[in-house]
Amino acid sequence: MEEQANTNAQWKIKTFNVIFKADTFWGKLFDGILLIIIFLSVLAVVLESVGSIRLSYGSYFLLAEWIFTGFFLIEYILRIIIVKKPWHYIKSFFGVVDLLSILPSLFAFFFVGAQSLMIIRSLRLLRIFRIFKLTQYLGEASQLSSALLASRKKITLFIGTILILVSILGAIMYLIEPPESGFTNIPKGIYWSIVTLTTVGYGDIAPITALGQIVASFIMIMGYGIIAVPTGIVTSEMNKSRFKMDNRSCSNCKATEHSDFAKFCHNCGKKLPEL
Amino acid sequence: MEEQANTNAQWKIKTFNVIFKADTFWGKLFDGILLIIIFLSVLAVVLESVGSIRLSYGSYFLLAEWIFTGFFLIEYILRIIIVKKPWHYIKSFFGVVDLLSILPSLFAFFFVGAQSLMIIRSLRLLRIFRIFKLTQYLGEASQLSSALLASRKKITLFIGTILILVSILGAIMYLIEPPESGFTNIPKGIYWSIVTLTTVGYGDIAPITALGQIVASFIMIMGYGIIAVPTGIVTSEMNKSRFKMDNRSCSNCKATEHSDFAKFCHNCGKKLPEL
Amino acid sequence: MEEQANTNAQWKIKTFNVIFKADTFWGKLFDGILLIIIFLSVLAVVLESVGSIRLSYGSYFLLAEWIFTGFFLIEYILRIIIVKKPWHYIKSFFGVVDLLSILPSLFAFFFVGAQSLMIIRSLRLLRIFRIFKLTQYLGEASQLSSALLASRKKITLFIGTILILVSILGAIMYLIEPPESGFTNIPKGIYWSIVTLTTVGYGDIAPITALGQIVASFIMIMGYGIIAVPTGIVTSEMNKSRFKMDNRSCSNCKATEHSDFAKFCHNCGKKLPEL
Amino acid sequence: MEEQANTNAQWKIKTFNVIFKADTFWGKLFDGILLIIIFLSVLAVVLESVGSIRLSYGSYFLLAEWIFTGFFLIEYILRIIIVKKPWHYIKSFFGVVDLLSILPSLFAFFFVGAQSLMIIRSLRLLRIFRIFKLTQYLGEASQLSSALLASRKKITLFIGTILILVSILGAIMYLIEPPESGFTNIPKGIYWSIVTLTTVGYGDIAPITALGQIVASFIMIMGYGIIAVPTGIVTSEMNKSRFKMDNRSCSNCKATEHSDFAKFCHNCGKKLPEL
Repeated sequence: MEEQANTNAQWKIKTFNVIFKADTFWGKLFDGILLIIIFLSVLAVVLESVGSIRLSYGSYFLLAEWIFTGFFLIEYILRIIIVKKPWHYIKSFFGVVDLLSILPSLFAFFFVGAQSLMIIRSLRLLRIFRIFKLTQYLGEASQLSSALLASRKKITLFIGTILILVSILGAIMYLIEPPESGFTNIPKGIYWSIVTLTTVGYGDIAPITALGQIVASFIMIMGYGIIAVPTGIVTSEMNKSRFKMDNRSCSNCKATEHSDFAKFCHNCGKKLPEL
Repeated sequence: MEEQANTNAQWKIKTFNVIFKADTFWGKLFDGILLIIIFLSVLAVVLESVGSIRLSYGSYFLLAEWIFTGFFLIEYILRIIIVKKPWHYIKSFFGVVDLLSILPSLFAFFFVGAQSLMIIRSLRLLRIFRIFKLTQYLGEASQLSSALLASRKKITLFIGTILILVSILGAIMYLIEPPESGFTNIPKGIYWSIVTLTTVGYGDIAPITALGQIVASFIMIMGYGIIAVPTGIVTSEMNKSRFKMDNRSCSNCKATEHSDFAKFCHNCGKKLPEL
Repeated sequence: MEEQANTNAQWKIKTFNVIFKADTFWGKLFDGILLIIIFLSVLAVVLESVGSIRLSYGSYFLLAEWIFTGFFLIEYILRIIIVKKPWHYIKSFFGVVDLLSILPSLFAFFFVGAQSLMIIRSLRLLRIFRIFKLTQYLGEASQLSSALLASRKKITLFIGTILILVSILGAIMYLIEPPESGFTNIPKGIYWSIVTLTTVGYGDIAPITALGQIVASFIMIMGYGIIAVPTGIVTSEMNKSRFKMDNRSCSNCKATEHSDFAKFCHNCGKKLPEL
Repeated sequence: MEEQANTNAQWKIKTFNVIFKADTFWGKLFDGILLIIIFLSVLAVVLESVGSIRLSYGSYFLLAEWIFTGFFLIEYILRIIIVKKPWHYIKSFFGVVDLLSILPSLFAFFFVGAQSLMIIRSLRLLRIFRIFKLTQYLGEASQLSSALLASRKKITLFIGTILILVSILGAIMYLIEPPESGFTNIPKGIYWSIVTLTTVGYGDIAPITALGQIVASFIMIMGYGIIAVPTGIVTSEMNKSRFKMDNRSCSNCKATEHSDFAKFCHNCGKKLPEL
C-alpha cells in the first residue's frame, strides 16, 4: 500500500521533471516536441483560413485538430494532476492560455467553422512563451522587459502626447481637406495622422490641397523627430542598466543617485552602507 | 462679520485644495472626474463629425455640449474666484486653454454648425495636460522636454538642413520626371521628397522613369541614414541629462568619475573642489 | 594720394567687416538681409514652377529675378574685390555657389525658360549654409558632421552591404514574382527592395504571390533590424564625443585608446605626455 | 631540377602575394581589377534582365559573359593551385562563392536563358566581401558584426515576439475586416501586420472598417515603440563593445574606470590586478 503511494509519488516527480524542468534529457525532449506541436497547430489554424487549402484538405485539418487538441488536453490534465497547487496553476496566465488552447477546438467540433473562435485558437501562440520562459533567453527577456517597465511612465506620457497630437492634427486636416481626399470625418483624420506620424503611409487617404500637403509635410518632419523619442527612452534605459546607479540613500543626508562603486555619500561625505 | 469672512476664506481654501491640489481625496476625485469629462467632450466633438452619427444622435450631442460647457464654465469661474492673482491665471497657458474650451461651444449655440470652431473645440484636448501637470509624470515630462530643449539648436539645424535638401531634391525630381508621374511642379517635388525622406511613402506620387527611380533610391538610403541623426541627438541628450560626470579627480585618493552634483568624493569621502 | 589709399583701405576693411563678420551691427544686418533675399529668390524659383502661378505673375517673377541677380552679382563682385586672395575665394565651395547662383539667372534672360537651369538656380539654397556658418549653430554643426565623419567608414560599409543585399533580394523577387506585379526586371526588383528595406513602401510595386509576400515579410523584418545599425553608429559616435578617448599613443609601447583623464599608459604604466 | 622546383616555388609565392595579399602594388592592382570586373559582371546580369536592353545588346552580353567567366575561372584555378590546402579553400565560404560565380555562366552557355540561374549569378556580388575583408574596413566590420552577434539572443527573442504578435494581429484583422479590404485569409492578415508594424505600409491591403482602423492605429503606435527595441539593443551593444570599463579600482590610488584591457592604472601607473 505504502509502496503504491511511493511509486505514485515517484511517478509524479518524474513527470513533473519532464514537463516543468528543461535541464533533463526528457525535459528537453518534451519541450522540443511541445514547441513543434504548438507551431504545427498554429500553422494549421493559419492555413485552414486559406479558402483554397481548406477546400482541398479540410478533412486533414479536422484530423490534425483532433490530434493537437488531444495532446494539449492530456498535457493540461497532467499539469493539473502533477502541480502541488492546481488552482494556482489554473488561474495563472499560462493556465488560462492552456485552457484557451483546448476549449475552442472542442467547441469547433460541435459548432463547425465557428469563425469567431479562430482568434482564440491563435492564442495558442502564447504557449510558445512558456518555452521561452525555460530557455537561455530568460535573462535577455527580463532585461528587455525591465528596460520597458522602467520607462513605462515615459512611454505612457509619450503615447498620451501622441494621441492628443493626432486628434488635433486629425481635426485640422478634416477642416482643411475636402471630403474627396478621404478626410470625411475627424476619426478618418485621426487615423490618417497616425498613419502619417508613424511613417506607415498607406496612401489610401492622402491630402490633395496645397495647404493640406504643407501641413502633412510638417507632420512628417515632426514624426521624423518624434520617432527618436521612444528610441531615446529605451536606449538610455538599456544603457542605465550598464551604468549601474544604485538606489542607496545616504543615512545622513538622504541623498540618492550613488554610483555602485561609491563608498561615501557624494553630498555629505558620510560612509555609505555596503551593497 | 469676521466669522463670515473666516468661513469664506476657509471655503476658498477648501475649494482651492480640491481644484488645484491632487494629494487629497477630493482633489484626486475632482481630477478624475475632470479627466473623464474632458475625454467625453472631446469624444463628442470627434463623433459629431461623423455624418451618419450626427444625423442620428444630433440632439444628444447638443445636450452633451450644454452639460460639458456648463461644467467647464463653472470650473473656469471657480478658478478665477479662488486663485490669488486672477489675471495671472487668465493670461497663463492653461487659463487661455480653459477659455478656448468654453468659447467655441458658447458660440456654437448661436451660429450652429460653425465648422471652423470645431478645431478650437479640439483644443479642449490640451486641458489633459493640466492633469498631467498634477501627476507623477511631471518628472518624466520635464526630463523629456529638457532633453528636447537642450538639443533644440541641433534639431533646428537638422530641420533646416532637411528643408534645404528636400527643396533641391524636389527641384531635381521635377526636372527628371514627366508630369504624368505627379511631379507637376517643384512644390509637388518637395512634398514627394519629404514623403520619401521620412519613409512615409504614400505612393500617390512615385517616380516612373529609370533615372527618377535611381535618384529616389539614393534619397531613400540617405533618409535611412538621416533618420539616425535625430535619434542620436535625443538619445545622447537623454544620456547626458542623466550622467553629467565631470573630470574632477579627488585631491586625496585621485578617484575620478564624480557626478557634477557631487560635493564629496565617492571613494574616500573627502570634500571635492567646487566646479 | 596716400590719404586716398588710406580711405580706400579703410573702406575695404569696413566692407569686409560688414560682409564677412557677423559680430557687428551692420554685419548682422547684412546677413539678415542676405538670408531673406536668398529665401525669397528660392521661393520665386519654386513658385515659378507652378504652371498657374507662372501664367498669372510671370512678369513679376522676371522682375524679381532681375533684382535678386543684381544683388547677388554686386555681392559677388564686392567679395572678389575685398578678399585678400580673390582666386582662393572664387575656387572655394561658397565662391562656386555664389557664381552658380548668378550664372543661371543671367543665362535665363537670353534663353528664356531654360528649364534645365532651374536645378542650378535651386543651388542658391546652398548659400543659406554661409549664414549657418556664421551662426551659433557652428559648434553643433561641427559636432554633428564630426560624428558622421568619424563613422564614415562604418556608414560606407553599411551602405555597401545594403546595396549588395538589395541587388540579391531584387534578383530573387524578379525570379519569384510574375511581371504583372511590377517586377519586370532586376533593376525594378532592386528599386522595390530599397523601397521596402527603407520602410518607405510606395505600393506602386508590391508582391502578389504567396512566396513573394513571405520573402517580402523577411525583408521588412530585416529592414526593421537594419535600421537600428545607422542609428547605433551615429548614437555611439555622438556618445564617444562625451567619453573623450584621445588619440595619444604611448611613447614606450605605442598603446592607444587612453581616456583623456589618463596620466599613465594603461598598457605599460609609463607616464603619458600631457594633453 | 631543384632550380625548377625553386623557381616554381618562387612563382607560387609571387602569385600568392598578388592574389591573397593587398599590401603590395601588384596585390592592390589585382584587387582593384577584380573589384571592377565583379561590379561589371553583376551590372551585366542586372542590365541583361531588362527586356529592351537584352534585345538590343544581347550579343554583347554573351561576349562579356565569356570574358568574365574566363577571368573568374582562371582566378579560381590559380587559387586552387596556389593555396597550401586546396580542399580547405574549396569548402570555405568564398571557395563556394567563387565556384558559384563560374558554374551558372558555364551552364548558361549550354542551356541559354536559364532564368533560374540568374539568381546564383547574382551571388557573384558576395565576392565583393572578399575585397572588403582585405581593406581597412575590417576593424569596423568586425565591430559591427560582433555587436550584432553579441545581441543575437535579444534579436532572436525580439523577432520571435514579433512573429507571435503579427500572427495574432493577423488573425484578429482577418476576423474584423471583410474580404473586400484584402484580408481574405490569415496569412494575408499576417503579411499586412508585418507591412504595418515595420511602418512600410504599401497600401495594397488596408483596413476599411472603423474597428479595423482602430486596431490598425494601435498596431502602428505599437510598431512605433517596438522599432525602438532593436535600435536600443544594437546601440547599447555598440557602446558596450567600445567601453568595456570594469570596476577594478587601483590598489595604490583607488582610481576607477579602467578599460578592461588596461594593465596599469591610468592615474598612478601602478600594476592593476588581473581580471
